[in-house]
Amino acid sequence: MRNGSAGGARPASQQSMRQHNLALVMGTVAGHGPVSRAAVAGHTGLTRPAVSSLVDALLAAGLLTELGPAANGRVGRPGSALMVSDRGPAGLGLEVGVGHLGVCVTDLRGQVRAWTVVDSPNAALPPAEVLARLAALADEATETAAGLGLRPVAAVMAVPGLVAESSGTVESAPNLGWHHVPVADLWAGPLPPRVENEANLGALAELWAHPVAADFIHVSAESGIGAALVVGGRLFTGARGLAGELGHMPVHPDGPSCSCGARGCLEQYAAKAAVLRAAGLPPSRPGDTGSPRVREGDGIGLLAARAREGDVRVVRALEKAGEALGTALAGAVNLLDPAAVVLGGAYAELGEWLVPPTRRELAARVTVRAWDPAALTVSELGRRGPLLGAALATVRSVLEDPAALGA
Amino acid sequence: MRNGSAGGARPASQQSMRQHNLALVMGTVAGHGPVSRAAVAGHTGLTRPAVSSLVDALLAAGLLTELGPAANGRVGRPGSALMVSDRGPAGLGLEVGVGHLGVCVTDLRGQVRAWTVVDSPNAALPPAEVLARLAALADEATETAAGLGLRPVAAVMAVPGLVAESSGTVESAPNLGWHHVPVADLWAGPLPPRVENEANLGALAELWAHPVAADFIHVSAESGIGAALVVGGRLFTGARGLAGELGHMPVHPDGPSCSCGARGCLEQYAAKAAVLRAAGLPPSRPGDTGSPRVREGDGIGLLAARAREGDVRVVRALEKAGEALGTALAGAVNLLDPAAVVLGGAYAELGEWLVPPTRRELAARVTVRAWDPAALTVSELGRRGPLLGAALATVRSVLEDPAALGA
Repeated sequence: MRNGSAGGARPASQQSMRQHNLALVMGTVAGHGPVSRAAVAGHTGLTRPAVSSLVDALLAAGLLTELGPAANGRVGRPGSALMVSDRGPAGLGLEVGVGHLGVCVTDLRGQVRAWTVVDSPNAALPPAEVLARLAALADEATETAAGLGLRPVAAVMAVPGLVAESSGTVESAPNLGWHHVPVADLWAGPLPPRVENEANLGALAELWAHPVAADFIHVSAESGIGAALVVGGRLFTGARGLAGELGHMPVHPDGPSCSCGARGCLEQYAAKAAVLRAAGLPPSRPGDTGSPRVREGDGIGLLAARAREGDVRVVRALEKAGEALGTALAGAVNLLDPAAVVLGGAYAELGEWLVPPTRRELAARVTVRAWDPAALTVSELGRRGPLLGAALATVRSVLEDPAALGA
Repeated sequence: MRNGSAGGARPASQQSMRQHNLALVMGTVAGHGPVSRAAVAGHTGLTRPAVSSLVDALLAAGLLTELGPAANGRVGRPGSALMVSDRGPAGLGLEVGVGHLGVCVTDLRGQVRAWTVVDSPNAALPPAEVLARLAALADEATETAAGLGLRPVAAVMAVPGLVAESSGTVESAPNLGWHHVPVADLWAGPLPPRVENEANLGALAELWAHPVAADFIHVSAESGIGAALVVGGRLFTGARGLAGELGHMPVHPDGPSCSCGARGCLEQYAAKAAVLRAAGLPPSRPGDTGSPRVREGDGIGLLAARAREGDVRVVRALEKAGEALGTALAGAVNLLDPAAVVLGGAYAELGEWLVPPTRRELAARVTVRAWDPAALTVSELGRRGPLLGAALATVRSVLEDPAALGA
């Protein structure tokens, strides 16, 4: 019974106390900075001598920085204000999309300091070649970061597929044609990356950059439809890390056959290919699904452009997709009671047409509790989410356990 | 962003260290007892002097007990073995069903020491009268417990309705006709009860008494259909405590109207009333839905009896119900990735007929990952779950924070 008995398996010790309190100070400065040591003591309940000792360790590790006394008008007596450092340790985000590669560096404040996205027909290349291209981009970004005084301490890679938890291997990414690809072993770039599902990272980016709630469902659509569940400010990944398969929730149990073998799954109504088909448009070109830029050749960009022009078939197809999405989400909301639902990824670019029918279905089917239609929102990050989330994941790790970086 | 920043809001202190380590020792004895102090040190990683000091406090508070040295053949040198006490602090469970009242006392080992369930037409009585009857039963059970050397330290009440978190008020229990009933204020029994949803308590009883997994969905059916989600050995209750409305997941979006205002909800296919209707049987009498004993007058008992006799309409109705249940659960499994699904409450008595079609649907619709049909099981506790869970909730609280009882 995991987590079932109280107190966890480890004894509390002086060492774990210090580790906890370092994170407490780091989190306080991150959330309230610039702040004086006295204010940190006030926020945390720690004594001033304890705060001073912890702050010294965080300064020495380069995780905090001091502004001059002049920069902080809020403290009466001389004493410099503390902020999280914008130099030193940083996060390196990597992304392998179906049609693009991305690299991003963020500092500990969560600010993007380097950002590169290039087209790359990854589904048509051997994984080793894809990873070699990405490693070259990562080397460049690391050099750029070094010029800014930043040193990436860990790398996380976003992939459109299933990833075993805490692993360097992609189990299965069908749209890339990847199966059991040992990314960590093939990697020749600057840091061995931890691989993570892109939808999960997109949701975390949303949580960290634009928090709408501590409990929400983040819907992500590229070629398929996935969801990430954020519970109490943490990603909920299920017993085997495979939670969030919103795309295969049954919408019409006797509906059309799905590639998964079942019938009437949400993807048969609301995935890009289904919407293009319903709109009488040709399937999008392989390899052009993941670009963060809207292009005519990209199915999503085409749908948005045609809908904006008032193409009735396209508008109607998007309305049907929104209805199906609303039906599936109604089940999810009834089951999970989230505070919000966020439409992210490519869906963010179709929000104008998807949101009204999705909200209507949610209103009609979430009736045993109060449900505010405005609780369904569109991501501001859209397709930028996974890459940003990949870089921020490292930043969050540092904030949550500064002791691991030697503080 | 709740829980978003690391380390929580409180500083780690000597006091919280001791609290943590008391729980660690208590949990170790509960999980491994009878054990020697040396074995506790081995399991926990605490030093022997620290263990001795913590054990002394737990003995003084009456939470642990010592067996004589003879009772413990496993320790080499003289030294008595420790066990959780079966006297002293106890849990008082209370239950208000639609047609019955229940009271239960469990000791800290989780053993049932008093158990009373009586018929009571609660839906036809004013809440104050229902609570007065229950208080009288609770007084009797507390007396019985005192005769066994047991002293209930807290009471938890199971109700078939929505309960605001950490509250003494029942927001809404439609099958009882209760709305905003301030249970704690009306209570004249031995301890002010904390009110909790019966499906949640049933799931916790399953987790504590017959743990199949740390992550599972517990389906509970009385008049309605609810689910409780257990994640990492903890109940997941959603942003507002309203998670688990499996009964209102859409199964056929254009299906029959549901009492909730939506169409084609699971309850329209698999709730007791729907199955009785499909089988051509009369609705069950009001007030007889909650008894733990199977009776002809109880709709569930009637369905089971007729199915056992081979009544084709009944068997067919149960098969249809199982299919609908499987469709809804397939959505839940795809979304949540649980390790198991447990059919509890009244469904446990219909498992023989419900399980095969439910498993078939799950197999057909959970295809993007491995899914073992045997992961769907039937609860051994059945309708006894909520009352047992109500008493065990207090026991768990004591095990998880023995310091709160003065240790």
